[in-house]
Amino acid sequence: MIVLASGSASRRAMLEAAGVAFDVVRPHVDEDAAKDSLKAEGIEARGLADALAELKAISVSRRQPGRIVIGSDSIVALADGTMLDKPESRDRAAEQLCMMRGGTHRLVSAVVAARDGVPVWRDVDTARLHVRAFSDAFVETYLDAEWPAIAGCVGCFRIEGPGVQLFSKVEGSQFTILGMPLLPLLGWLRDVGEMPA
Amino acid sequence: MIVLASGSASRRAMLEAAGVAFDVVRPHVDEDAAKDSLKAEGIEARGLADALAELKAISVSRRQPGRIVIGSDSIVALADGTMLDKPESRDRAAEQLCMMRGGTHRLVSAVVAARDGVPVWRDVDTARLHVRAFSDAFVETYLDAEWPAIAGCVGCFRIEGPGVQLFSKVEGSQFTILGMPLLPLLGWLRDVGEMPA
Repeated sequence: MIVLASGSASRRAMLEAAGVAFDVVRPHVDEDAAKDSLKAEGIEARGLADALAELKAISVSRRQPGRIVIGSDSIVALADGTMLDKPESRDRAAEQLCMMRGGTHRLVSAVVAARDGVPVWRDVDTARLHVRAFSDAFVETYLDAEWPAIAGCVGCFRIEGPGVQLFSKVEGSQFTILGMPLLPLLGWLRDVGEMPA
Repeated sequence: MIVLASGSASRRAMLEAAGVAFDVVRPHVDEDAAKDSLKAEGIEARGLADALAELKAISVSRRQPGRIVIGSDSIVALADGTMLDKPESRDRAAEQLCMMRGGTHRLVSAVVAARDGVPVWRDVDTARLHVRAFSDAFVETYLDAEWPAIAGCVGCFRIEGPGVQLFSKVEGSQFTILGMPLLPLLGWLRDVGEMPA
């Protein structure tokens, strides 16, 4: 049985819905510190999502000898390149929503599989999300409904819930938007015999 | 409050998740007869989905004076133009899965809003789904898990469940694949003041 190196409810839900059998083991990594240090090196969104997915997969893989461990990460980047972090307060969420309003942002999701501390497969995919020019009143109504549920969501939304109201259009894979490129991952799991083909 | 003219669980779930308030009133229409007669006229998938969505919306709208009624329909069309119906038996589902296998099909979803028996807004959208060359053994395992849950699904799959295992790639909106172009509908509901902007 594979291991999912993630505490994310939406990644867990995706794998469960697809019928994949897995254990969850949370990675012990200082994600914020790693992110800050990679950002300081000038890394862009794809590279950052990939590096953080790898970090999580490898960290758990070292403690789970012989098992396939899946790490994943998502980054939201605004049109000007600004990368958003998880909102640490309702006020910060409101600020981020206003930064996103009326613009198009990229949501990059990466997945890395590791075994015995070594990455053995990876994929990264980007979706483009067009955010409506919603009203200030909408932001407050939205946060009344969705805070603090979205505290752990980069981009301040759950596309599978009221978050869909933020967008006029979304381009790209729903699974990428939910936090993990699922179809390439399932394809690889079939290739290595972890799922029926 | 708007009315959803559909018994479909996935359309209901989509609107609920988005935070739309609605009543469900099932349409009393002979969908199969309407479909057969439209097909006999040589209608293609987009026109058929649109016509059936309108039929459902109008049928319910006549019994719900003054209210906005939403009708919706989805059609799966194989590369050769063959349109699939809901599988009426497990054997027929297996046959359809084998017809879909290794090919790319279109999934067309239409939504029509009606008021007082008259259509007032409509949208139609197409997604493209690439079906894997899965094994015969996979078909049986899949149907063990998903029959009869998929008896009401054109295309024999629930993308939000194990149905995702059928595909190597999907192109287009997840909402269209789930059975209704949700983002255009939400946009129109905001335009007519049925939802906060």
